[in-house]
Amino acid sequence: METNKLILDGNIVASSIKADLVPRIAKLIGRGITPCLATILVGNDPASATYVRMKVNACKKLGIESRRIVLAEDTTTEQLIQTIQQLNEDITVHGILLQHPVPEQIDERAAFEAIQLHKDVDGVTTLGFAQNAFSLAAFPSCTPAAIIAILDFYNIQIEGKHAVIIGRSPILGKPVSLMLLNRNATVTICHSKTQNLEEIVKLGNIVVAAVGKPKFIKGSWIKAGAIVMDAGYNEGNIGDVDYEACLIKASAITPVPAGVGPVTIATLLKHTVDSAENSFFSIL
Amino acid sequence: METNKLILDGNIVASSIKADLVPRIAKLIGRGITPCLATILVGNDPASATYVRMKVNACKKLGIESRRIVLAEDTTTEQLIQTIQQLNEDITVHGILLQHPVPEQIDERAAFEAIQLHKDVDGVTTLGFAQNAFSLAAFPSCTPAAIIAILDFYNIQIEGKHAVIIGRSPILGKPVSLMLLNRNATVTICHSKTQNLEEIVKLGNIVVAAVGKPKFIKGSWIKAGAIVMDAGYNEGNIGDVDYEACLIKASAITPVPAGVGPVTIATLLKHTVDSAENSFFSIL
Repeated sequence: METNKLILDGNIVASSIKADLVPRIAKLIGRGITPCLATILVGNDPASATYVRMKVNACKKLGIESRRIVLAEDTTTEQLIQTIQQLNEDITVHGILLQHPVPEQIDERAAFEAIQLHKDVDGVTTLGFAQNAFSLAAFPSCTPAAIIAILDFYNIQIEGKHAVIIGRSPILGKPVSLMLLNRNATVTICHSKTQNLEEIVKLGNIVVAAVGKPKFIKGSWIKAGAIVMDAGYNEGNIGDVDYEACLIKASAITPVPAGVGPVTIATLLKHTVDSAENSFFSIL
Repeated sequence: METNKLILDGNIVASSIKADLVPRIAKLIGRGITPCLATILVGNDPASATYVRMKVNACKKLGIESRRIVLAEDTTTEQLIQTIQQLNEDITVHGILLQHPVPEQIDERAAFEAIQLHKDVDGVTTLGFAQNAFSLAAFPSCTPAAIIAILDFYNIQIEGKHAVIIGRSPILGKPVSLMLLNRNATVTICHSKTQNLEEIVKLGNIVVAAVGKPKFIKGSWIKAGAIVMDAGYNEGNIGDVDYEACLIKASAITPVPAGVGPVTIATLLKHTVDSAENSFFSIL
């Protein structure tokens, strides 16, 4: 076992976030508002069903209501958007989560865009992305927010650090890059067309793996003392980082499971409670 | 004089863009639609007045109508937004340009946001930023689009290159970073808090200077053979790049003036014509 290595424990960070929510939820309920997250699962993907179940269970434990909507595999874009619009109009719903991915026939982007900004607790709309990119009010995507929350929890400085992000998806690589940039990191974004990936990852004081490929990031790519954040979650509970090998080089690292994952869920709950509070203040 | 150096001539690129617009404008006018750009200048900043005049003159030369709106120095946010909303509703106006910067008492972001997406030819709204970041339909900011247009005009490959951007503003550094990323460059974004800026700039196959500081980028920072794009435009027609010094190292470079500047204006005209065409097709 390595010593002087900081294992960034997502369960501890998630517990801390959730502990802060307990009195806030109690206060809301006292005012007659039960925070409510609507989850939409389209089709029969077993992994997606599991993710939704985890989120619903996390809600239940804290006293957040969840509204589970399950739509058939052959749902059309129009049907899905109609469901979303009903949830937009329902004042008892504070957050809407459309579980990604949806079946092929659905225009996922159009469905995401149908979610009202103030209920976009998962940070999937383009407007939410941009507002977050400009440090405005919207909810950031949950995984990028979780990565920042972990760094902050462990008092890891971001400003002035060189952060290397591997991956550029709309809800992970791109927003986490901009959030780290807004926190004054120098940011490099890599992807499948990056040449000399190993050399570039080696520049990183902070490395964020967001590729979706098991054990893709090798120990030899990591600069000694770097901080390694593994946002991957591949079949069999395997991250994007070769954990054992990277642990040797890193000064701090998130494991998988029990790293970024639980903090992502806690962030979703936090955004739902934020949204419920906002809805209370907006009717005052 | 150096040989084998490619001077990226913005006037040639701008002429090419404008030449493509001539038949499109003629066709629109034949259909009874004169493309029209509304410019809004608030207050008495002489540099802003000059920029607006350059844009209006460029419109005139091509037969694009311009609607010049000049508001007093003490205009309120509400008054400015009201003016923008009138232009949004005016079907004879196809593009709205609010000249940056506005006087201090105005909430510039709120004013930008008031511009309808399909008239946001200058790419200043958050929604436009995000759609551009996701390679969706909106008009990108003009200077980032101009930088890409110059690279494309000269057949400079972007994919797989390491692009280093110095600057992170909402209408320049951030969008150009995401546009280069979407064109498969590896992208590093630097700024005032970046440590070892010189070393990082030296990694760049493509260097984009977007700092707003005269001659900030030194020749010694440039990797031999790099492509240097100077988006700066400081008092006295001076770029962000120490041109003479960087010319020695670079394989290709934009001068100031006659580099990115004229292509930015040509891009604004192109977006206005695009918008006029879109308005025609939307009423068919």
